[in-house]
Amino acid sequence: MFAATAIRGDAFEIPPTMRAWVLGGPDELALIEKPVPDPGRCEVLVRVDAVAICATDLEIIKHGLPAMVEGRPPFNKQFTIGHEYMGTIVKLGPSVDEFRIGDRIAVEIHAGCGRCPRCREGMYTSCLNYGFPSKGHRANGFTTDGGFAEYAVNNVNTLVHVPDEMPDEEATLIVTAGTAMYGLDVLGGLIASEGVVVTGPGPIGLMGVAIAKALGADPVILTGTRDRRLEIGRTLGADAVVNIRNEDPVAAVSRITGGKGVQYVLECSGAAAALDEAARMVTRGGRICLAAFPHEPVSVDLAYIVRNNIYVFGIRGEGKSATHRAAALMKQKRFDASLIHTHTFSLRELPTAIKYARERIEDAIKVVVKVH
Amino acid sequence: MFAATAIRGDAFEIPPTMRAWVLGGPDELALIEKPVPDPGRCEVLVRVDAVAICATDLEIIKHGLPAMVEGRPPFNKQFTIGHEYMGTIVKLGPSVDEFRIGDRIAVEIHAGCGRCPRCREGMYTSCLNYGFPSKGHRANGFTTDGGFAEYAVNNVNTLVHVPDEMPDEEATLIVTAGTAMYGLDVLGGLIASEGVVVTGPGPIGLMGVAIAKALGADPVILTGTRDRRLEIGRTLGADAVVNIRNEDPVAAVSRITGGKGVQYVLECSGAAAALDEAARMVTRGGRICLAAFPHEPVSVDLAYIVRNNIYVFGIRGEGKSATHRAAALMKQKRFDASLIHTHTFSLRELPTAIKYARERIEDAIKVVVKVH
Amino acid sequence: MFAATAIRGDAFEIPPTMRAWVLGGPDELALIEKPVPDPGRCEVLVRVDAVAICATDLEIIKHGLPAMVEGRPPFNKQFTIGHEYMGTIVKLGPSVDEFRIGDRIAVEIHAGCGRCPRCREGMYTSCLNYGFPSKGHRANGFTTDGGFAEYAVNNVNTLVHVPDEMPDEEATLIVTAGTAMYGLDVLGGLIASEGVVVTGPGPIGLMGVAIAKALGADPVILTGTRDRRLEIGRTLGADAVVNIRNEDPVAAVSRITGGKGVQYVLECSGAAAALDEAARMVTRGGRICLAAFPHEPVSVDLAYIVRNNIYVFGIRGEGKSATHRAAALMKQKRFDASLIHTHTFSLRELPTAIKYARERIEDAIKVVVKVH
Amino acid sequence: MFAATAIRGDAFEIPPTMRAWVLGGPDELALIEKPVPDPGRCEVLVRVDAVAICATDLEIIKHGLPAMVEGRPPFNKQFTIGHEYMGTIVKLGPSVDEFRIGDRIAVEIHAGCGRCPRCREGMYTSCLNYGFPSKGHRANGFTTDGGFAEYAVNNVNTLVHVPDEMPDEEATLIVTAGTAMYGLDVLGGLIASEGVVVTGPGPIGLMGVAIAKALGADPVILTGTRDRRLEIGRTLGADAVVNIRNEDPVAAVSRITGGKGVQYVLECSGAAAALDEAARMVTRGGRICLAAFPHEPVSVDLAYIVRNNIYVFGIRGEGKSATHRAAALMKQKRFDASLIHTHTFSLRELPTAIKYARERIEDAIKVVVKVH
Repeated sequence: MFAATAIRGDAFEIPPTMRAWVLGGPDELALIEKPVPDPGRCEVLVRVDAVAICATDLEIIKHGLPAMVEGRPPFNKQFTIGHEYMGTIVKLGPSVDEFRIGDRIAVEIHAGCGRCPRCREGMYTSCLNYGFPSKGHRANGFTTDGGFAEYAVNNVNTLVHVPDEMPDEEATLIVTAGTAMYGLDVLGGLIASEGVVVTGPGPIGLMGVAIAKALGADPVILTGTRDRRLEIGRTLGADAVVNIRNEDPVAAVSRITGGKGVQYVLECSGAAAALDEAARMVTRGGRICLAAFPHEPVSVDLAYIVRNNIYVFGIRGEGKSATHRAAALMKQKRFDASLIHTHTFSLRELPTAIKYARERIEDAIKVVVKVH
Repeated sequence: MFAATAIRGDAFEIPPTMRAWVLGGPDELALIEKPVPDPGRCEVLVRVDAVAICATDLEIIKHGLPAMVEGRPPFNKQFTIGHEYMGTIVKLGPSVDEFRIGDRIAVEIHAGCGRCPRCREGMYTSCLNYGFPSKGHRANGFTTDGGFAEYAVNNVNTLVHVPDEMPDEEATLIVTAGTAMYGLDVLGGLIASEGVVVTGPGPIGLMGVAIAKALGADPVILTGTRDRRLEIGRTLGADAVVNIRNEDPVAAVSRITGGKGVQYVLECSGAAAALDEAARMVTRGGRICLAAFPHEPVSVDLAYIVRNNIYVFGIRGEGKSATHRAAALMKQKRFDASLIHTHTFSLRELPTAIKYARERIEDAIKVVVKVH
Repeated sequence: MFAATAIRGDAFEIPPTMRAWVLGGPDELALIEKPVPDPGRCEVLVRVDAVAICATDLEIIKHGLPAMVEGRPPFNKQFTIGHEYMGTIVKLGPSVDEFRIGDRIAVEIHAGCGRCPRCREGMYTSCLNYGFPSKGHRANGFTTDGGFAEYAVNNVNTLVHVPDEMPDEEATLIVTAGTAMYGLDVLGGLIASEGVVVTGPGPIGLMGVAIAKALGADPVILTGTRDRRLEIGRTLGADAVVNIRNEDPVAAVSRITGGKGVQYVLECSGAAAALDEAARMVTRGGRICLAAFPHEPVSVDLAYIVRNNIYVFGIRGEGKSATHRAAALMKQKRFDASLIHTHTFSLRELPTAIKYARERIEDAIKVVVKVH
Repeated sequence: MFAATAIRGDAFEIPPTMRAWVLGGPDELALIEKPVPDPGRCEVLVRVDAVAICATDLEIIKHGLPAMVEGRPPFNKQFTIGHEYMGTIVKLGPSVDEFRIGDRIAVEIHAGCGRCPRCREGMYTSCLNYGFPSKGHRANGFTTDGGFAEYAVNNVNTLVHVPDEMPDEEATLIVTAGTAMYGLDVLGGLIASEGVVVTGPGPIGLMGVAIAKALGADPVILTGTRDRRLEIGRTLGADAVVNIRNEDPVAAVSRITGGKGVQYVLECSGAAAALDEAARMVTRGGRICLAAFPHEPVSVDLAYIVRNNIYVFGIRGEGKSATHRAAALMKQKRFDASLIHTHTFSLRELPTAIKYARERIEDAIKVVVKVH
C-alpha cells in the first residue's frame, strides 16, 4: 500500500495503478488492479482513506447499476461502487484552487451537470442529465467510479472540508448526516420548537434525530422496531422513542404530544404504511419528507392528505449543500455521529464488511472500510 | 323579495327575516324563513346576489357536514350550505372600514381563527381550529352558514372586490379560479415558460388551464374523458388536450413535450391512478398539486416519487389570498371564466339546480343560483 | 402586593386595582393605582412577574408613543409602557383553552389585527393596522398597555411557554432572543456552516451571536467597541470578535475569513457606516438584516449593493413566531442568555432601573424589573 | 458577409475569420478581422443576427471592463463587447444536444462557474468566480467576448429559444425583459392583484411595466420625466403614469392608490432619491427591487426602512432563468416589446448606433445593430 506523506501543500507520490473493487455479475465483487485516474477540469484526485457501506450499495451489488446510466450495462466488470467516502486530496485538476493538496475532505454524492434547468435552479440532485457523465453529471459510486478503491476522482463542488480532529471513520458519516439535514431543509428549515417525528432508526433516521435536536426541534420522537437502535436515538437527542411492536405509532405520537401531533415527519423506514401513518402524525398543514420508500406500490389515503393540506417531499440524496451544514454541526460536536459507526474492516475485507452490513451481524449499523 | 337600492354608500333596508335553504336529513333541503343575521366585529352582512353549486355542496347534502364541526350534528335542520357566493355589502359590523355599503364582493371560503400557529404563519386554510366557530374560525357553508339564502354574514378578511362590469354569475366563479390559482401558487408560482399538465376538466381544472396560460405556462396540457370539456379547455388556453379514452395520458404528455415531460401537474380528477400518472408526467424534481382525491385509498408507487425527487402538495381550498390574484386576472379579462357557467336558476329552484349539477344534465358545468 | 398562589389550574385571587407606572410628559413616569384589566376574547390576564428594559422603552419615555397610534396623544398620563415582560396566567378570556391558569409565559410584542393583507400572509409584525387597537392590533407597551405594572392583558397568539426551571429574569430575555432569531430567519434560516457577522454587541446582537452559533453558523464574528461586551459575545459563541476601535471591521472580517467574506450580516449597531461596511463584509449575493438603524439619514453606496446582488432586510421586532424558536433553544440550554442580564430592581425602583439602563451604569446590559 | 443557409439541422458554412468590433482605449472602438471562435464543451457557436445596445455597453466603452476581470487590463484592443444579442446556432461544441444547428436563440448574459456555492444554490448571476473565465464563469460582453461581431461563442445553459415568428430585433429585447422579470421574481413572484410602481421608463423599466401587467399586477404605476416614454409605458400596460416634473411621485402614488400605497417598487431610475421615495410608496412590509443605482453614494433614511419592515433587493442582471419566462410571455404576445425598439443600424454603423443611444437622438430607446 502506498504510504502518502501527510504534510499539507506538499506533493504526494501517486502510483500508476491501484487496488479497486469492481462489480461483476450480481453479487460478484472482484479486487483488481486499475489505473489511478487523473483529475480533469474542476476535479481533484482523492486518496480514499475510509468509506462507509450504505444500504444502496447493497442494492447495487445485487441488482446492478441504475438502469438510467448512459451506455452502461449493469454488470460491466469495471465499475467501482461506494459513495460514502472521505480522504485526502493528492492532486488538483486544471483550474482548481479551492482546495490544497493534503486537505482532508468528505464528498457529496451528486455533482450536477450544471447545464440543465434543474442544476440552473440549484436542484443538482435532480439533475436532468442524471446518468450522463458525458454531459457533466456525476454521482459517485452510482454513475461514476466510487470509493471502494485506493483513489477516486471527484468534482470540487462536491467536496466538504473535514476538520483535523475528526477521525476518518466519523467523517464517512458526513454524507449520511447531510441527507438527513437535507430532509429537514426541504421541510422548511425552521424546525426549532416544532415537533419532529423520525420514522425508522437506520443511519439516516438516527442522524435525522441528532440534527433535528441540534437545531432545536421539540419534541423529537423516534419510532422503530429495535430497542437498541431506539436507545441510540435517545442518546443522539430523541425526547421520546416508540417501539412500534409495542405501541401504535400514531397513537404514541398523539400521546406524547398531548393530542396535538407534530409539524414534521422525516420518513426513513420505507415501511408500507409509513406515509399513511405519517399523515396522521402531523397537524393540519403538516409536512412529510420521504427519505426512504417501499419497493412495491402501496396503498395511500390521498383524501386524508388533501383534506389536511399536507405536503409530501420525496428526496433523493443530499442536495442544497446540506452536507456542508451537517459537517459544520459535526465539527462543532453538536452530536456524536460516531455512535452509529459499529464496525471497521480493511479494503481487502470488503466482502466481510458487506456481509456484516447486509445481515446486520452484531447489530451492525454503519460498517466502515478503512482504506489508507 | 327585498329589492335593495343599489347606490353605494347609501343605507340598505334590511328585512328582519329571509328565505334560506337548510339541510335536514341526507338529501333533504327545505326553504325556510330565518332571521337575517347581524354582522359582528370584523364582519359584514352580504346580500347574496348569486351562488354557484360546487361538487362539495353535493357531498354535504348527501353526507352531512364534516364530522369535525364543533358540537354540530350532521343534519340539524338549521344549517345553510353554499360557499361559492357573491353579493352586495348591506351592513358593516363594528370596526369595519375596509369596505363600504354597496360594494360588490365575492368571498373566500376560509377565515382562519387568527390565533393558531397555522394562521399565524399565513396558512389560514389549514387553521388548527377548523370547525370551531367559537375560536374564530369560519368556513362558509361548511362550518358556518353559507350562501343559499338571501343574506349571509362574512369576515372582512375573506372578501374580494368584484368590479362593476363583471356579471354576478361570473363573479361566483372567482373562488373556483382562486382555488386553481392557489394550486399553481404552491407549485412555486413562477410558471411562465414551464410545462403544466392539468388532469381533469372540472371547474377547478378548467380554471387551472386558464390561469396557467394567463401566467405564461407553455405548454399547458389538459387531460380528460369528455371532448366537449376538453374543447372548453382549449378555448381557455390549453395548448394541447388529451382524451384519455383514446390515448394513454403519460404517453401523450411525453409525445407533446418531445419526451421531456413537464415541471408541474395540477391534479383535479381524483382518479385512482392520477398520482402515479402525474409522477410520470413530470421531470425529475417536478411538482404535483393534488386539488382532488379518490375517496378510497389507492395504490401509489412511492419509490418512483422518492427516486425522482418529486414533491406532492395536497391543498384544501383557496389559501394565500390566491382568490385576489384570480379576481385580478378575471377583472383584466385574461380569460373568459363564464365559459364554465352553463345554467342559471332562481333561489326557489335550488333542487332543480342541484339535480342539473349532480346529474350533469345538458353537460352542466357550473350551475348558478341567482338570488337577487 | 398581591401574593398569588402558584398551583397551576387553580384560581388566582385577582385584586380590583393594581400598581402601574404610567407615562406623563416627556421623561415623566408616575406610579399610580389603576384597575386591573379584564381579558377579552382570545386574551388572558397575566400577572407580570418580571419585565426587562429595552432601548425602545427609553425612546418612548423621552419622545412619547409612536405618532401612528390611533387617537392617542403622545403623553396621556394613562399609558403603561414595557414590552419585554413575562409572567403567570391568572385569568382566561372567553374561548381561551390554549393555556391554563398558572402557566408561565413570555410574550411576543405584536399581535396583528388578523384581517389585513399582511396578517393574512403571516407577516403580523408588519400589520397594516399597526396602532389601531380598534381593528384588533396590539403591540404591547407601544400601542396597548405594557408590562411595567402588576397585571397586563395579552392575546393568546403572542404567548410563549416558559419552562418551569427557567428563572423569571432569564425569561424576560426570550423576546430579545426572538428578535435576533427573526433576523437570522429572514436571512434564510439555513445558516449552519455559513459565516455570520453580528455588528453591535447590544442585547439583540449578543443574542444573535448566541443563536447563530447554536444553529451552526461558522464562523460567527462579533464587532463592537467595548471589550467587555465582546468578551460576553465570545462566551456566547462568537468564534472571533473585533474591536473596531483597534481594527477596521471590513478588513478584520476579510482577515478572519481568509479573504472570502461571509454570507450574512446581522446589523445591530445602528452606526452610520454600518450598512456600507456590512455590504463589504458579505460575498456577492450576500444578505444583510438591519435590526437597528441610525436616527438620521446616512450615506449609502447603493451601486455596491446592486452590483453585488445584495439583499437588505429591514426588520421590526420578532415576527414569524421566531420567539418560539428562541425559547426552544433557551429551554434546551443551547446558550446562557442570562449572561446579558446584569441588574435587577423592584417595580417601585423603575426610575433607578431606567437610569442604570440609560447611562449604562456598571456596564448595564439588560436591567430587569422584578414585579412579583 | 457570409450568407448562412437557413435550413435547420443542416450544416452552416463557417468562415475562418469574421468582422468584430473591439475596444481600444476609452471611447475607441475598431472594426477588425478576428478568427471565428470554436465552441468548447457545453458551448455553441452563434451567428449573431442582431444585437441591441445597453446603457452598460456605453459605460464599458467609456470606462473599460469591470476591474474584476481576471488578468485583463481594461483596454486590451482585443475585447468585443455586446451582451444583448440573438442569432442562429451554426455549430455545436462537444456533448451538446440541447440545441440543433439552425435554432434561433437569444442569450442570457451570465453563465455561472457551476462550482462555487452561489452557483450551487442557483444564484448564478452572483457567481463567486465572476470574471474568472478560467474557472468557467462567463458574462458575455463583460468578461468574455460579446456580440458586436459576426459570431460569438456561448454556453448552452444561457440560451433561450426564439420562436420562428419573432423578428430578430424584437428577440434582442428578451434579455432586457428577462432582467425586468427577474426583478419582479425576487420581489416574490405572486404579483397579480398587487400594486407595483416602476420608477424610471428606461428599457428595463418599460419592460417591467409590461411584465407586471401581463402577470396581473393592479395597479401598475410608472414614474418618469419624459411624457413620450410614459406614454409608451401606458401602451405597455401602465394603469397610471406620473411625470415627476409635475407631481411629487410619493404623493402621486398615494393619490392613485387611495392612500394605500403599493406592495412593490421596481426601481429602474438610478435617481439619488429613488430608494427613499420607493420606501414611502410601499406599505409596511413592502418590497423594493433596485435594478438601477446612482453612481455616487446617496443619503438613505434607513430608520424608515427598518421601522416599516421593508426589504430591498439589489439585483445584477437576469438570474433564476427569468429570461425564459420573459421569452415565453413575448412568444405569447402578452405585450409588444418592439415598442421600445426605435432604431436599427448595420454592424459597420456601430459608432453611429452608439451615438444615437448615448445622446438619445430622436428619443432613441433601444438601438439595435442588425448583423446578419
